[in-house]
Amino acid sequence: MESYLVGLIGSGIGPSLSPQLHEQEAAHHGLHYVYRLLDIDRVGADLGELVRTARRFGYDGLNITHPCKQDVIPFLDELSPDARMLGAVNTVVFDGDRAIGHNTDWTGFAESFARGLPDAPAHHVVQLGAGGAGAAVAHALLTLGADRITLVDADPARATALAGELAARFGAGRARPADAVQLPELLARADGLVHATPTGMAHHPGMPLPAELLRPGLWVADIVYRPLKTELLEQARALGCRTLDGGGMVVFQAVHAFRLFTGREPDTERMLAHLTDLVSV
Amino acid sequence: MESYLVGLIGSGIGPSLSPQLHEQEAAHHGLHYVYRLLDIDRVGADLGELVRTARRFGYDGLNITHPCKQDVIPFLDELSPDARMLGAVNTVVFDGDRAIGHNTDWTGFAESFARGLPDAPAHHVVQLGAGGAGAAVAHALLTLGADRITLVDADPARATALAGELAARFGAGRARPADAVQLPELLARADGLVHATPTGMAHHPGMPLPAELLRPGLWVADIVYRPLKTELLEQARALGCRTLDGGGMVVFQAVHAFRLFTGREPDTERMLAHLTDLVSV
Repeated sequence: MESYLVGLIGSGIGPSLSPQLHEQEAAHHGLHYVYRLLDIDRVGADLGELVRTARRFGYDGLNITHPCKQDVIPFLDELSPDARMLGAVNTVVFDGDRAIGHNTDWTGFAESFARGLPDAPAHHVVQLGAGGAGAAVAHALLTLGADRITLVDADPARATALAGELAARFGAGRARPADAVQLPELLARADGLVHATPTGMAHHPGMPLPAELLRPGLWVADIVYRPLKTELLEQARALGCRTLDGGGMVVFQAVHAFRLFTGREPDTERMLAHLTDLVSV
Repeated sequence: MESYLVGLIGSGIGPSLSPQLHEQEAAHHGLHYVYRLLDIDRVGADLGELVRTARRFGYDGLNITHPCKQDVIPFLDELSPDARMLGAVNTVVFDGDRAIGHNTDWTGFAESFARGLPDAPAHHVVQLGAGGAGAAVAHALLTLGADRITLVDADPARATALAGELAARFGAGRARPADAVQLPELLARADGLVHATPTGMAHHPGMPLPAELLRPGLWVADIVYRPLKTELLEQARALGCRTLDGGGMVVFQAVHAFRLFTGREPDTERMLAHLTDLVSV
């Protein structure tokens, strides 16, 4: 029987659900599979040493999370086209003596969106949050065919920078930054709203924007998954909006990483059900 | 579900069956369990660094084999009474921030012997081989109640040294060294013969002593387990001798290590059957 050893490198990763998601799915495939947390603040090694040593000590691959997704790149031998384009890696596969970086964050969101909001109109999407997750989400939306995205971030420089990168990648005019004060006017005419900031998480409760800016006919996607039912989504549902919760992105990034690590096809419905169990506790 | 990451440290360990034995038994217990080989000649770290780094990188425990069983001791925080007495460690458990050394080689042989040759007379046992495995086996025999053991080794100084250690531990007269030329006279009156050298292994075929020294009434125990049917055991069986093959020692040392790592009670019959499958391939 095959055995796999995978680690997650990042900071403050204690609450990660990836060990359970990966290990339980692997058990259904009859694989020996252990997923370990390698907290960069606790292992006592710099990032390059973490990657090199994990390989020497029998790891088959790594997931990479905040704050290491960009910093890990110099320590890899090769990048997938996606990871190179995004400048961010969340999955590393040790293939022989090569360490290959991939990005399953954007593919994870893309699959979740295509599955959860099929045929959602996307002439104009407003996105809150232009950090690392926001970069993956906006890339996914433009790849899926959104005509244009307007980015709003508490740090306007970050929204401007990401809009510039996206415009360079997808074409001028497809992404632009805006200020929060423009949200009423923007959302009055947008097709959808994507939320990619931490507001609404268990430790950041609340709404990321005034509830009165929501309206029937707007679809609303949240990337927060703890809890799955954020205040934003509850308010949107009360208005009859189509919604997408953050569970799909976290599950599909794991699905895609699991496939890269093992070559096996995970059961996505089973993993979604497992995530729902995990976050409902 | 619990997950366990265990490694084997040693040299030339590629053919080890421990990964399969441990991982398959763990699967029956519904545990996520990965057992990795950490060859000291290939990982590129000295022994102390191997032990420290394995712990930092998520390992729960280690098995230790040739040539590291003595050398590992300075890098541990605590030894079980057995390991301290034998001066050899084959199992390390990481318990919180402490690394605790155990020895399941001698308990493995002891359980195999008690199970496979119950009530075998042991007034006088002749043992071939006074190396690391021989030290564990002789310790087990004297602990189980053998009155005295005579040790024969191709290196007479090694037999003398081990006999001295055993006599100090168990009492004067309970262990003594002898020369190979004395074997005819010794075996003419011994109750049993224990073989603890590599002769008879797949790459060391042959007999460790002249076949004509065997006789009906002598029990014969071999620690070689690849193959399980050594020429020594076949010759002994042809004479009607009670015999014990080497499978029990390797399985029971694994059983005892598995129990230390996980706190679970392995199914020894299932592991014995698995070993038989593995070595018959």
